[in-house]
Amino acid sequence: MIIDDPAVKAEVERVFATYEAALVSNDVATLERLFHDDPRTIRYGAAENLYGMDAIRAFRRARPAQGLARALEGTVITTFGRDCAVAMTLFRREGAPGRVGRQSQTWLRFPDGWKVVAAHVSVIDDAPDEGASRP
Amino acid sequence: MIIDDPAVKAEVERVFATYEAALVSNDVATLERLFHDDPRTIRYGAAENLYGMDAIRAFRRARPAQGLARALEGTVITTFGRDCAVAMTLFRREGAPGRVGRQSQTWLRFPDGWKVVAAHVSVIDDAPDEGASRP
Repeated sequence: MIIDDPAVKAEVERVFATYEAALVSNDVATLERLFHDDPRTIRYGAAENLYGMDAIRAFRRARPAQGLARALEGTVITTFGRDCAVAMTLFRREGAPGRVGRQSQTWLRFPDGWKVVAAHVSVIDDAPDEGASRP
Repeated sequence: MIIDDPAVKAEVERVFATYEAALVSNDVATLERLFHDDPRTIRYGAAENLYGMDAIRAFRRARPAQGLARALEGTVITTFGRDCAVAMTLFRREGAPGRVGRQSQTWLRFPDGWKVVAAHVSVIDDAPDEGASRP
């Protein structure tokens, strides 16, 4: 199994960028297209646990479209073989100083393209280790 | 690509159970063996963002061994082909009433067995949607 084959990695980087652009512009149709339409697809969100594409769709469609802009950092995409990848990133929003978001996704290649089969988003206080290590 | 091939799924269920037993008993050697020893392995934890196996090892070895017992619920393991799987689960701890943990892992098959290549753990208030929908 080749890890980070350049051609495969470029594909996943492209679809990850498409997903990110859709997320911050609340392009729900694209977001839905990039998730695997299956009852086994799971998304743990910032404040909700969504089991199955029906639950994910209902959440997306009810989501407010404001305040979605964010800056990514620490983004790492790693591919395994030709058909599997993980995309991990941190993110920050202007409206949430002192907080850092984490987004993890597992992407699989299907006949109609790369799809997220599992995702997890959470937000924690920034740099807790720094605070803990201060005297 | 066969999703949830029974033989593959049984393998991942076994290794997932081994991991869970190691976690609640703080069997650090087993926890480390079940993560891919690679700088690209990432674990977003409840309060820390660990990039690379060195950071993950340092965190595990410094972790207090108390209060790790937990009850799982909503566990879903899904396999994709012969070599890739995602394991998603919720968990609760007696010491944290009203809170629910979420753990997501991506597992890959390597020559020396199944390994976690990416993990994300977070804890949120329980059933926020119920609270929000009350008048």
